[in-house]
Amino acid sequence: MATKADRTRQFIVEQTASVFNVKGFAGTSLTDMIEVTGLTKGSIYGNFRNKDEVAVAAFEHNFQQVSNYIRSKMEERQSIVDKLLVYPETYRNFSKHSFLNNGCPIANTSTEADDTHPQLKEKANDALGYWRNSVEKLLKAGIKNDEIKPDVNVLEFTSILTSLIQGAMLHAKSSGKMNYLNASMNFLESMIRELKK
Amino acid sequence: MATKADRTRQFIVEQTASVFNVKGFAGTSLTDMIEVTGLTKGSIYGNFRNKDEVAVAAFEHNFQQVSNYIRSKMEERQSIVDKLLVYPETYRNFSKHSFLNNGCPIANTSTEADDTHPQLKEKANDALGYWRNSVEKLLKAGIKNDEIKPDVNVLEFTSILTSLIQGAMLHAKSSGKMNYLNASMNFLESMIRELKK
Repeated sequence: MATKADRTRQFIVEQTASVFNVKGFAGTSLTDMIEVTGLTKGSIYGNFRNKDEVAVAAFEHNFQQVSNYIRSKMEERQSIVDKLLVYPETYRNFSKHSFLNNGCPIANTSTEADDTHPQLKEKANDALGYWRNSVEKLLKAGIKNDEIKPDVNVLEFTSILTSLIQGAMLHAKSSGKMNYLNASMNFLESMIRELKK
Repeated sequence: MATKADRTRQFIVEQTASVFNVKGFAGTSLTDMIEVTGLTKGSIYGNFRNKDEVAVAAFEHNFQQVSNYIRSKMEERQSIVDKLLVYPETYRNFSKHSFLNNGCPIANTSTEADDTHPQLKEKANDALGYWRNSVEKLLKAGIKNDEIKPDVNVLEFTSILTSLIQGAMLHAKSSGKMNYLNASMNFLESMIRELKK
């Protein structure tokens, strides 16, 4: 059973998660954490050793929100092609999801942490690895099932799917316009449909 | 002729540019700027109103380094297809270029600034717009010249080229491995070669 301390930790993570996603690690201050949780400094640092520990837990929470949503949408679908189509559909509509509205947590965290914060860099890299692995598993299952063409280059397709989504999100978040994101997602959707044997 | 003040400003921009690209706006402190320039606080803020002004000039400098390199590589080439191939070739070898080694300045700045810093967000968006515009101009020139198939979807191709590069850079910077970046660049290179009429 969750203890009171567990519940307080969880509360702090949930409240600070979107602040870290928007402002980044360096941009999020103790004042921000106090403001968004309504707790005191003593209460926050009674539950976490330091800002790093809150930031890592906040990133994991943000990434779980995205991956839980995608997993549950996929569970509603039968074919591998339909499951893969969840990706472009989700990111095309990113602004409707509170957990993507401020940008992909992987891109936000990775671009900041890659040369500055080894622990967060590792977490972002794990998340990106988890995503690549999920796509590769779907592709391999589809090949095994005879749903997907056997000559698909799994590594290349995985790289294209994940890179296109990350890059297209950058256009949309940067410009506030959807035309480039939509063009890339149209292309990705046809690539996914063409996987079908 | 450049005045002494112009030269000092330029020196400050050149010295701080890579710090801003690595640490971001929020992560770069006055102490960093003092350390990297060897100048005093008075000298830095005698030449710039505030950190925002240094950060904007540093971003412009970083972006110019990338775009000047790409422009000069393109000038060495004749055909539009060969000119477009400069993009995947450059980013595939990003770690060899000091101006890309810490990641693409557009992605680094945009992911941080999109929800926090309107002035830097605008600069990053202008840079991304400039890039899209350069690709679109090349494609249109190639169609006009009869070098490139006339039915190419210019907006879609531009979106794919720029998104794939940004996303693939994220994989490489995050993981430290080149396999996903290379796979996306291989794919992009064949897409560019297939443009040929």
